[in-house]
Amino acid sequence: MKYLSLTKDELRSEIASLSAQIEAFKAQRLNLTMARGIPCAEQLDLSMGMNDVLASREDFFTADGRDCRTYVATLFDGVPELRRLFAEVFEVPEEYILIGGNSSLNMIYDTMARIMLFGLPGGDGPWFGKKVKFLCPAPGYDRHFKILETLGIEMITVNMLADGPDMDVVEEAVKDPDVRGLICVPKYSNPTGVVFSDEVVRRLAAMKTAAPDFRIIWDNAYAIHYVYEEQHLANIFELCREYGTEDRVFYFSSTSKITFPGNGVAFMAMSPANTKWMMPALKTQSIGPDKLNQLRHVKFFGTAEKMMEHMGLHAQIMRRRFDVVNEVFSQGLAPYGIGEWGNPKGGYFFSLNLPDGTAKKTFELCGQLGVVLTDVGATYPYGVDPRDCNLRIAPTFPKPEELRKAMEVLCVCARLAYAEKLLAE
Amino acid sequence: MKYLSLTKDELRSEIASLSAQIEAFKAQRLNLTMARGIPCAEQLDLSMGMNDVLASREDFFTADGRDCRTYVATLFDGVPELRRLFAEVFEVPEEYILIGGNSSLNMIYDTMARIMLFGLPGGDGPWFGKKVKFLCPAPGYDRHFKILETLGIEMITVNMLADGPDMDVVEEAVKDPDVRGLICVPKYSNPTGVVFSDEVVRRLAAMKTAAPDFRIIWDNAYAIHYVYEEQHLANIFELCREYGTEDRVFYFSSTSKITFPGNGVAFMAMSPANTKWMMPALKTQSIGPDKLNQLRHVKFFGTAEKMMEHMGLHAQIMRRRFDVVNEVFSQGLAPYGIGEWGNPKGGYFFSLNLPDGTAKKTFELCGQLGVVLTDVGATYPYGVDPRDCNLRIAPTFPKPEELRKAMEVLCVCARLAYAEKLLAE
Repeated sequence: MKYLSLTKDELRSEIASLSAQIEAFKAQRLNLTMARGIPCAEQLDLSMGMNDVLASREDFFTADGRDCRTYVATLFDGVPELRRLFAEVFEVPEEYILIGGNSSLNMIYDTMARIMLFGLPGGDGPWFGKKVKFLCPAPGYDRHFKILETLGIEMITVNMLADGPDMDVVEEAVKDPDVRGLICVPKYSNPTGVVFSDEVVRRLAAMKTAAPDFRIIWDNAYAIHYVYEEQHLANIFELCREYGTEDRVFYFSSTSKITFPGNGVAFMAMSPANTKWMMPALKTQSIGPDKLNQLRHVKFFGTAEKMMEHMGLHAQIMRRRFDVVNEVFSQGLAPYGIGEWGNPKGGYFFSLNLPDGTAKKTFELCGQLGVVLTDVGATYPYGVDPRDCNLRIAPTFPKPEELRKAMEVLCVCARLAYAEKLLAE
Repeated sequence: MKYLSLTKDELRSEIASLSAQIEAFKAQRLNLTMARGIPCAEQLDLSMGMNDVLASREDFFTADGRDCRTYVATLFDGVPELRRLFAEVFEVPEEYILIGGNSSLNMIYDTMARIMLFGLPGGDGPWFGKKVKFLCPAPGYDRHFKILETLGIEMITVNMLADGPDMDVVEEAVKDPDVRGLICVPKYSNPTGVVFSDEVVRRLAAMKTAAPDFRIIWDNAYAIHYVYEEQHLANIFELCREYGTEDRVFYFSSTSKITFPGNGVAFMAMSPANTKWMMPALKTQSIGPDKLNQLRHVKFFGTAEKMMEHMGLHAQIMRRRFDVVNEVFSQGLAPYGIGEWGNPKGGYFFSLNLPDGTAKKTFELCGQLGVVLTDVGATYPYGVDPRDCNLRIAPTFPKPEELRKAMEVLCVCARLAYAEKLLAE
């Protein structure tokens, strides 16, 4: 029963039936939030052991005997054991890694603010006051866009395709010298779940940019956050090395969704030239990151294998929720010719594309029924979804049965919004 | 035997004797560093219990039941229990407190960078690209000066007197609208140990500034770090309230030298207008600070009384070292008419004023004997001590007997530098 093929009368009858279902939901006084991508309590419990690993006095020292309880200038870029572990797990050169505080988003902001104030090597000085544009594959991560907007950087939306940003558009856009960067989540992307194909990563590495100080903010936040099966992402540093464009990449990630969100360890990785550029200003800003939390992480995981086993436990918990969304959407949307959600293999989100012009209405109807979703438009630069079609679903936090209820509500709301739109046409 | 009253011949004989002592030190191949203000291992051991206070699952929740293991938007400004504790201990209004990461220096830099990029309420927009001057009581904290220099802010040196900055000079300087701020450590100042008098704090609160967006960076890093007896510092917020100048103050402190340096909890305090100004940019930069470390602190200390008891244990350890410096200087410098060091009652440093033109020479001689001090000039803007007279001594880290040896070396070197200078005149 594809809605598109219904007569006006059939639509009216469908709307009556959906409205009755909505009234029934209303009576249930639901209160379900799936607005932000946060682990559920069961996931948090997986890392509780991390708080007991600093037990004896020796546990507070690095393997080579440096006391992590105090300032240690030589540990400015992080505890060596943890840099080594991150290098192995995230497949970046160990010497590229700079460990930071509790948030990679904070490191991204700080990096961008540093560029605004001091400029980049090979560039024309501080970006402050200059016309600077960034390419923003969208749907994308709302907090990325907020950073760029706050710093006065003009955002250019590039469509996110099934294998990454539309590279024809990207390659054309970077001929403009004002286009100085691109920001993205390359694996299990927020919110689409897209994993950039080898071809896309290669083209990002190879493309000629008019701006000599062009940078890619490579936020690999979900590098190891598979839900179904682990996917392959090409190694951007290796590809860039082939094309002599390694300085183009600022790589970021963290353990926020591996151990404790907001209490994990973030890091960035960058070429020696970028490190050399960053250090003076960074050493003015910081006396170095919390090293005890680094020790907790390294002692809790021990090896890359153990860390991946830990991610396997996360995946089991997540899978139960991802299954629910796939199932409810397949039954509650697909038969009516509504919805594309790309079957994400990992990450924290579903990106649901509804028929154009029905996302806002669906969001409002859900809200009235006590089901809170991420704001419509948040996944686009300036908070505006040009087609009013995209909803971000964060399914990880609620219990599966609550999630099922919320998704059922969402399906009914989306169908009603679409049916009403068709009727009005 | 004041050197100033010696004849040339007497000076020559004194120099010969000092040179012999230096040769003897040389043979001892010393290796003593007192360059940075860091607690000794014994002090670090005082806080080891902090790592065991998160034991049961309930320990990870705030008193009102919020799960600190994950993102909690309502905890953006900190765990309420810790804000309450800080408010009591540091005598600032609880609602003024914003808890940050592991470093107040980082919060100071971020605040200044934010002003550069976005400006302040009541001001004329971002400070970037504008002529901005800051008043810098000196000797002062080298990392403060480095922040201002890095951001391109012109530093104006103001003499630090025994009761705080020379307020006649400050009050005159703030008539210049380009003078937009002052940066200081008001209690047990780094490095002088000076505690600002009530009169000085009142004048800072009361003075009329030409710049409408004038700010005082009030880095109360050593608020409770007494060594001998606790000193009184006037409450700057209270005084400012009298004069309607509360927005002038950005207050900072941390537990870096209370628990673990670089692994503690930093905070700032500011008026509601400043908070309102700061929040949008801060919420773009940050997803909030590490809350588990906040819980560790609050559970370890429990009450303000316990926290002050803890500082008493620090003071005992520090006192043994401060006593050594006072004793060696009294015997090794004072009789020769050399040296003023102001008898600090707390903090982490001695600021030793030698006869003009002898600090660098003394520093070099010490270095040749394996005694490393903070770079000469570091305590002044742009790293230049105009009178070449000031040395910063950080006596906390070495063992008392090592410290004694280092101070004895320093005395001999200072005497030699002075005697040689007098002879050459």
